[in-house]
Parts: sequence; structure tokens; C-alpha cells
Amino acid sequence: MRSDKEKPHAGLCRVTFLPKDVSAFVERGTSIYDASIKAGATINSVCGGQKQCGKCKVVVSGGRVVKGNAGILAAEDLRAGFVLACDTFVDGDVVVEIPPESVLGKGKILEGKKTPTELADDLAGKFPFDPLVKKAYVQPEPPSTESNIDDTHRFAMAACKALGVETAEADLRVIRRVTSTARTNNWKLTATYATLGQRGKIIRVEGGDHETENMGLAVDIGTTTIVLHLIDIHEKRVIDIESKYNSQTKFGEDYIKRIMYAQEHANLAEMQSLIVGDINELLDTVCARNGLPCRDVLSVTTVGNTAMHHFFLNLDPGNIRREPFVPVVNFPPPVRAREIGLALHPRAVIYALPGVSVYVGADITAGVLATGLYQNEELSLHIDIGTNGEIVLGNREWMVCCSASAGPSFEGSGVKHGMRATEGAIEDVEINDRYEVQFATIGGTRPRGICGSGLIDTMAELFKAGLLDRTGTFHSVDGGPVRADEDGTMKFVLVPAEKSWTKRDIVINQIDIQDLLRSKAAIFAAAEILVESMNVKFEDIRHVYIAGGFANYLNIENAILLGMLPDIPRERIHFVGNTAIEGAKLCLLSRKAAETVHDIAQKMTYFDLMSNYKYMDYYQKALFLPHTDLDLFPSAKRYARNND
Amino acid sequence: MRSDKEKPHAGLCRVTFLPKDVSAFVERGTSIYDASIKAGATINSVCGGQKQCGKCKVVVSGGRVVKGNAGILAAEDLRAGFVLACDTFVDGDVVVEIPPESVLGKGKILEGKKTPTELADDLAGKFPFDPLVKKAYVQPEPPSTESNIDDTHRFAMAACKALGVETAEADLRVIRRVTSTARTNNWKLTATYATLGQRGKIIRVEGGDHETENMGLAVDIGTTTIVLHLIDIHEKRVIDIESKYNSQTKFGEDYIKRIMYAQEHANLAEMQSLIVGDINELLDTVCARNGLPCRDVLSVTTVGNTAMHHFFLNLDPGNIRREPFVPVVNFPPPVRAREIGLALHPRAVIYALPGVSVYVGADITAGVLATGLYQNEELSLHIDIGTNGEIVLGNREWMVCCSASAGPSFEGSGVKHGMRATEGAIEDVEINDRYEVQFATIGGTRPRGICGSGLIDTMAELFKAGLLDRTGTFHSVDGGPVRADEDGTMKFVLVPAEKSWTKRDIVINQIDIQDLLRSKAAIFAAAEILVESMNVKFEDIRHVYIAGGFANYLNIENAILLGMLPDIPRERIHFVGNTAIEGAKLCLLSRKAAETVHDIAQKMTYFDLMSNYKYMDYYQKALFLPHTDLDLFPSAKRYARNND
Repeated sequence: MRSDKEKPHAGLCRVTFLPKDVSAFVERGTSIYDASIKAGATINSVCGGQKQCGKCKVVVSGGRVVKGNAGILAAEDLRAGFVLACDTFVDGDVVVEIPPESVLGKGKILEGKKTPTELADDLAGKFPFDPLVKKAYVQPEPPSTESNIDDTHRFAMAACKALGVETAEADLRVIRRVTSTARTNNWKLTATYATLGQRGKIIRVEGGDHETENMGLAVDIGTTTIVLHLIDIHEKRVIDIESKYNSQTKFGEDYIKRIMYAQEHANLAEMQSLIVGDINELLDTVCARNGLPCRDVLSVTTVGNTAMHHFFLNLDPGNIRREPFVPVVNFPPPVRAREIGLALHPRAVIYALPGVSVYVGADITAGVLATGLYQNEELSLHIDIGTNGEIVLGNREWMVCCSASAGPSFEGSGVKHGMRATEGAIEDVEINDRYEVQFATIGGTRPRGICGSGLIDTMAELFKAGLLDRTGTFHSVDGGPVRADEDGTMKFVLVPAEKSWTKRDIVINQIDIQDLLRSKAAIFAAAEILVESMNVKFEDIRHVYIAGGFANYLNIENAILLGMLPDIPRERIHFVGNTAIEGAKLCLLSRKAAETVHDIAQKMTYFDLMSNYKYMDYYQKALFLPHTDLDLFPSAKRYARNND
Repeated sequence: MRSDKEKPHAGLCRVTFLPKDVSAFVERGTSIYDASIKAGATINSVCGGQKQCGKCKVVVSGGRVVKGNAGILAAEDLRAGFVLACDTFVDGDVVVEIPPESVLGKGKILEGKKTPTELADDLAGKFPFDPLVKKAYVQPEPPSTESNIDDTHRFAMAACKALGVETAEADLRVIRRVTSTARTNNWKLTATYATLGQRGKIIRVEGGDHETENMGLAVDIGTTTIVLHLIDIHEKRVIDIESKYNSQTKFGEDYIKRIMYAQEHANLAEMQSLIVGDINELLDTVCARNGLPCRDVLSVTTVGNTAMHHFFLNLDPGNIRREPFVPVVNFPPPVRAREIGLALHPRAVIYALPGVSVYVGADITAGVLATGLYQNEELSLHIDIGTNGEIVLGNREWMVCCSASAGPSFEGSGVKHGMRATEGAIEDVEINDRYEVQFATIGGTRPRGICGSGLIDTMAELFKAGLLDRTGTFHSVDGGPVRADEDGTMKFVLVPAEKSWTKRDIVINQIDIQDLLRSKAAIFAAAEILVESMNVKFEDIRHVYIAGGFANYLNIENAILLGMLPDIPRERIHFVGNTAIEGAKLCLLSRKAAETVHDIAQKMTYFDLMSNYKYMDYYQKALFLPHTDLDLFPSAKRYARNND
């Protein structure tokens, strides 16, 4: 109701969004989508208002609008009175209703592990506790005629001795404060020491004992979500966790769209400030909730794909989408909070962890650190499935990696009723002999759509039920559950209108199936390329680590059945969750871990699939259920035979 | 004439200064001295307007003033209508005449060596040419699908290879520019590499070949004068030299007064900005004069006493004048130009060279670097005479140093007609048998006063002429050249009124002589302490390096005759001029030199004379001409006998 008392602005149109009842004043001709951003009404969009995804469906319930001609809404949507928010332009005061399926809800974000004690356990036996930024309370002998070395050196020597380091330069601002701080605190001082390259620096001086007041952040800058862990470094404890959607999403769900937007509008700085603003917001929330001063946060480790790290550091991401696909930097130097605009201690050090290439970023290197793949004697495979599927194969001797353009279908994009793993998403599906559907939704609500794990289940269950053949084509039998849409597209109704939140059927159709098939084929073919290139076999792989966005909710049997994961003994497959943030936390607490992640990034050999002539071959063979070569998937043979 | 068109300000008094005809509007009650600073009229002052030095004599030729009661002007000055500018306060519009002797003139500043070729010669055989900041033009292979390492690393690797260094991190701002600069310049790039601690950093990227455009500054931040050398690093050549008085002088001629002022008025930042402003002004001058962009200045080495370095870096100098006399820092870290406010390239690196203690600063360590004392096999003595006399004794094995409070008399302060070595100063004096005076002035003008070397000559000549006895007391014979002042003080007229610029007698009196005696005794006693402490003898010293402000103009025989310098073979005594800036230049051009000056600072043992019980003893013995112990000065014996 916040806008009720606002006066209409001369020449501007008021756009009100229901059911939230928020509004914005915009110029005539503004799209409803842009107005929704201004009003703070969160409309779902995958393409970022580019008239491509068809997700921003709304109903104009009052006022004059001009409709565009994108023509991507289905006939039934048009009949139901829907318009695309990004393709409809206000022509006066307007009232807009946002239907449930177009609301961008608070999601099921993979925030990582929470229990307070386990950071110490994580370190135990792997890395020594030796934080990148640490504190030492020191009480050097005050100066005298006999001992008249300078204040800075007196303080630094005491700090180095206490911390067991050789020497440390002090920041100029520390030097400027050391004399008065020492004198007013009778030489009882706390030094903050930060690792910076080979040697360290003293970045802060405090009067008195503040040794225990040392907080750090591990931040996972995801394309979709930003996750922040506030760490009590001294106690090796996670104080709190918070997450939110990446505010850049309004400029496109995938980062390629955001890069294009940033370049077209020459506003890279805005892209950075959105991420920085998100992190500051999360930081504010956790610090306020725990009654802790943001200023005591002295170190940050960040992970994210290469594009996100470019945005975060305000680096030109243009070459991420231009041949020969070269990042500005894979090993970003440590930078200070004030250089980036993070609202921590201004001299706090930010360690953006290193990546391998444009398509294999710090989220993967940190993930490999967390799983320990890099030190396994046995062959291991790390799979992180998101818009891209990043895959690492290796052991303690060698590591190879690649990135498959899986497309965003597992994140719900491009699929008719696909959605992110937020409230109301179907995440678990079973279909019985009578084609009856059992499902579970996130939050236990009525279903709004289907998220990644739900899509895999649906497809696998349809295959098992004999409703899909090996090419992924629907078997339609008269009177059967598979029917043609009005435009002739075959579909299966998962939830009928009367049971859905949206009051409309939730379906999966032939187009969706083909899309999902391409995604899973891309991932499996990528894994095959790595395996073959290194002259090993899938059965040699002792550990498969499934990391990333939907790893925790994946039905492993179904994923194998579809030919997305190799058919190996199930006990070898581990769901490892958000390994990126776990790696970031290890680095925060152990310099050795940070050095190791550098070694990992350096050691990993990147395979560019696009320039690999075999890849297309493998991909084509994987476009079947489960695969052309059934011998690769013995577990799936019986279903495959049924469907031949 | 700049103020003629200004309207009188309500309630403010206009103070006009002649002969320059500049004026300022000030509050009623403002001192004429403060008004002169505002008007930009440079009145001479040693104490900085503290009513102590009596140098700021002016004549009020119109308007109402209120006189204070400092009472330090001589009767003759009062009769001549002089008032002290710092002790006279405006009470309406006022016209003030500044007499010649109160004008702060452009001085004879010891700017160091000038000839273009000799920097290379200086380095030759001492240090390798390996500048602290260097450039490399590189043309790495552009990225391709086969070679897709990141842009930063590609650039940094090429730079490191060209420069023969192992690795280098790049500044974030370099990383932000590397991609576009490389792409628009077809991977023809120039890297600027700066030594920072053990490893270096790339601080700048330019498109194209700019390898030769690398300038540096060597700056001597003296208490009195600031000297700047603009160096073409690539050519190992001094491009230009400029100097000016330290603008802090208005707050006191000696730094103790400035520290007090900064503390009383809590404006340390102002003290810094004055020095920074001076350096920027000098830089502007030399860059404009040579048509060079200030932005291509990428490195700076500074020398100065410890107090000046504190002011320059905006560090609290309070403990420089408070027991136990501890500096904030002796080894300042390299800082960037933007941190200090120098108008060079913002990421240019400033290396403030290290000092030893509160009273032995970077000017001395750099001087020792320049003379090579630290590597001499034979025993050497380094003497730098200014307000303090800093003395270093040592060889390649060990070095000891101390600082004697010589007082400012050699700089003309506290001496009736003493003045700085500026235009019109008597710098060379001879007195013959008939007590006739021959003299030379700086600039060849009529004399205004006597500078340090002139004072030493005068005293020695008076001694040789039998007009001073061994205690420094005037022989006054009726009708002789030594006469009593009206207040009974004995004096010798060096220049009669009719021959002087000031139209008044230029004299040296008994009080002046005692002052000079104390100064020379302080220096010699300090040298004795070092010599005795190390269990050596003056005759063991093979090299005496006379450095500092008036070293080039000192009559060595006279200095020995007075007992200021040890009586050793004259060929062992070297006038080395401004060794501080020579040392600074060596560091700019050779990392090894910079490392060596650090070693020197670390190796030198500081002797605190104030806590040395023997020092007062030695000092008392040196309060004679030349000394109590005549055996120390065989050369002076015949004059001493005459005067017994």
C-alpha cells in the first residue's frame, strides 16, 4: 500500500501491481516488465525482458496498454488473457495482476552446511588452521632510551613473533595510527595480519585485546543466487548464513545476456554495484541479526563462475562470449574492500579464488578443493550441473576439465512449465502402471511448475512407463495419457488444472523432452570426451561428486536411466552439495587451502569442447534414452528394450 | 597591483606590503607577519612568527597598529623605526615596508650535481642499472583457441620475461584495462613494473611502445629547502633540477617549532600538504619546462630527516621531541602517489628511504650510500652540518652515528647579522694585518648579512688576526677595530653602513661568537665521542666526507683552525655536497642500491649523546679556539700561542 499516498506525476503513468499492490510512475511507452522492476514487484523472467522466455506472463486488469508482437505466448495463454510483461507497454495508468506462476519467489537455495562445529572438522586432517587474515594480541615492551626502535617496527615485530611469521610491512594507515594507539593503550595492541602474496601485511591496529574479534565471509556469487556465510574465524564457526537472488537477474537469467546488456549500455559498473549491493545487503542482515559490527569482517573469499568474478571485480567480460574465449584474469590478486565497495573494514582483504578458463571458474576449483578430488589416488569425476555442466576428471596426478553447454532447462528455463527450485515447484515425481502421477512440491504447496529434479524424474518415469521411446518421442495411444495440444504438440499432463496453484494444467510436452534430452546429452558427452581423452573408462572412476544447484534433490537412478550419469555402482556417487562455498570457507581458514586451490587451478587442463571434433559425435550418440550404445547403461536395458 | 581593484571588506583591514605592493584583508588584531603570509609577501623569519628570532623587521609607513612587548629589537632598530612583524597587530588599514634584510630571497640551494652523463658514471662499478620501477615493451602472441590463457597472465608473463623477473601480480586497475588496451593495440603493450617488497607489481599498462617514457624523481625534503631532480630513468640522465624553500618555514625555521605548531593546532595534514604542494609545484615547473607529462613520472625516492619524512607521510611526529625519542617508523613502506597526493601517475610508487633514529634520518643513510663509506675498508667519517650536525663513523664492518645539536647558527639563525646562503650573503671573508676586510657575497651584490661559511671565515680570520682569544673573547684595544655597542656588547664591523645593502653596519658581536663556538664544539665533541667509543683515533680516519648545506663553500683550513673539523691531512677531506639526493638517485636507478641503503640503516648503531655522560665533558673542552687540548690541532698552534 506504499504508493497510495503518492501524487500522480505530471505526464507519468502509474502502474500498479497486484496482489502485492505496489506501484511505480513511469513514462508512457515503458514496458510493464521495466515498470515492475521500478515498483519492486518481482516478476519471473528467464531472458531478462528480452521477449524470449515467455515467463513474465501477466494480466492487465485495468487501463490502456499497447501490445507488442513477440508472438511467443501459447493460444491458451492468450485466451486466458495473458500478455507478456516485457512486450506490453503502458499507455496511461494501468493495473496489472501477476499470476502465481510469474511470481519470483524465495527459493530453495543451496546454502551449504550449517552446523556450528563442523568447520573445525572440515579442516581436521586436511589443512592446518592458519587463516588468510589473522589477529594477534601483543604487549611489546614500551620504548625507552635503551630500546628506541621505531613504533611501527616494535609493533610489527611483536605481531610477527606472536603469529609465527617472518616479517610484515604495515599499511600506511596502520603506521599513521600505531603511535597514538600504542600510547593511549599502554602498548597493549591487537594486530590484524593479512596474507598478501608471499609476505603479509599488517592491515589494522587496535588498542587492547581484540584477538577473538575476527570475522570473515565466504561468498558464492552464483549467476542465480548469492550465498553468504559469516564466519567466526577465531572460533572456526559459521555464525550465520544468508542468501538471495542475484539482482543482476533482471538483466537476464544467464550471464551471456547480462554481458550483452552491460556492453550495449556501457554500464559494467552497474553490474558490479548490483553484486556488491547484494553482498552488502546479506552482510547487513547477518551482522544485524547477530549484533556484530560489519567493520570486524576482515577477510572475504569469493567463488563464482568466471563471468560473475569479472562482474564482481568490474572487469570487462566481453571476451567471455567472443572467440577465442579468454578471461581478463584467472588468478585475481587480493584486493581491498574499499577498492570494490564492500561495506566491511575498508582494508579488509578480498580473495577472489582462481578459475581455469572462461567456462570453468572458481566455483569448480573450490569445489575440487572441498571434495578432495585433487588428492585422490583413485580416479574421480566432479560434475556441477547448472546452466553449464562443468566436469572435472582426475586424481592426484592430473586433472582435466570442460564445460558443457547444458542449457538452462534443468533450471526450468525453456521448458513450458519449468521453474526454479522455489516454492511450489514439483521436485519429485513417480508415475505408476496406470499412468497415475505421485509428486511432491517444495514447501508442500499446490504445484506451480516443475524444477530440475522433477523434470528428470518425470522424463525417467515416462520412459519407464513406456510413454517415451528411446529417441524421446511420446507414444501416443488413443485414450492414453499422452495427448496432442491444440497446436499438435504431444504432451503429458502431470497435474490437472483443478489440483494446481495456477488453476491450469501442468504439463510436459514433446518440445520440453527434446530440450531436456539435449541437456543431458551435452553433459554425458562431455564426460565421455574427458574419459576417452585420458584413455580411461567410466568403470575406473571410483568417486563421482555431484555438486551444484540441484544435486541434493536428484534421483540418482533416474539420472542414470536417462543416460545423464554413467552407470556405475551407486555407492560411488556422492551428493556433495554446494562444494564451492565449502571450498571458500576452507581457504578463509587455511592459507594452505588457498595455496592448494591455486595449485588446482594451475594444474587443471581445460578441454574446449567446441573445438573438439569428436564432441558432436558423442553428443549425437547421447541424444537417445539412455544412449545409442546400450552397453554403457546395463541398468537401463530392460526399459530400453520395452521402448525399442 | 593585484589588489587595487578589490573592494574593502566590511570589518576587515587591508594590509599592503611594499615594495612588492601586495595586500591582504585580515581581521583587526591580526599580526603583520600573519598578514604577510596571506598576502604572499615573503618576510624573513627564523622562528616562524614566535617573537624569538627578531628577523621579521618591518617599517609601518601608514595606518594604525598596536605594538606588542616582545622587546627583542635592538635600540638602533627601534630608532630606525623598525617593528617586529610578528609582534605588531593591525588596527585599521596599514601600509608596511619590508626592508631588504627582511626579504626572504631565492637562495643558493645545494641542488646536487647536474651534468647529464654522470648518473651512468655514478652507477658504474657500484650498482647494476636495475631501476625500482622499470618498463618493458612486449608483444605477446595474441590469444587463440590453442593458447587461451587469460589476458592478465599473458601480459604479465611477457613482461616478466622481458624484465628478467620471476612473477608479477598486476594492480586491479591494470587488470581492468589490460583487455581493451591489448585488443585495441594488437597486443603491443608496455608494462610498468614496480619493485614492492620481495616481489614486484605491474602498475601500468599502455598500448604501444612507451618503454623509453619512464621518469622518476629524487627529492630531498630538507627542513629549509626542497630539491627535486627529474630523472630520465631509461637514459640514466638528470633531465632537470629545481628547488624551493620548504613552505613549512612559515611555521618555524626548525622542525621542532613546526611539530609544536602541528600539535597545538592539530593540523598535521596541513603540514603534509605544504610539503606535497611544494613537490607538486617543483614537479610542475620541471615538467612544463621540458614539455613532459607529469603522468609519466612513475617512481620517486625521497630523502630527508626523520621529522620531514614524518610530515611528508602524515605521521605523528610528536615523539620526535618527547623522550625516549622514538620515530613512528624508520623503514617506511613504499606507498602510491595517490595515497600521498603527489600529482604524478596515481599508481606511481614512492620510496621514502629509511632512517636510523629520530635524529639520524634518510638524508644520512642515503649520504652514506652515495659516498660509499659503508663499503670502505678504511675508517671514514661522514659529517652533515645543518641545524643538527649528523656524524657517521665507520667502515665496511661497522658504522656508528650520532646527532649533535649544533643549533642553527651556521644557518644564520641566532646570529645578529646571520642569514641563509641567499643573495647578498657574505660567504667568504679575509681580514688582513691592518684589520681590513675583503669579502665576497652570493650573487655579487652588496652585502645583506653573513651566511654560515662567512661566519666561520670571519671567526677564524678574527682569531688569526689576534682579535679573538682562545675563549672566543674579543681583544678590544682603544682605537682598534673591536668596539663596544651602545649596550656594551663588543663587536667587529665587517661592512660599514655605506657599503651595505641595508644601509646599516654588518657586524659580528661577542654574543654571535659564543653562539658559533657552541655550535662548532657540539660537532667536534660528537665526533670525538664516536671516535673514542670505537677505540680509534682521528688520525686513523682516512676519509672525511663533508656533506650538507654549506659544505661546498666551507674554507677547510678555517674550519680546522676553529677546531670544528679534526686536524688531519687535508687531502683526506672531501666536500661531497648534497649526498642525500645523490643517494636518492642511485636508489631510483638500482634496486641493489635501495637494498643497500636499507642495510645501511639497519647496520648503523645510533649513539644518543644526551644520555652519554662523557659528551658534556668533551663539549666543554671544545668550547675553546681551537680546543683545550692544543695537541689535537697542531696546525692551529701558532695562532693559539699568539692569543694565549
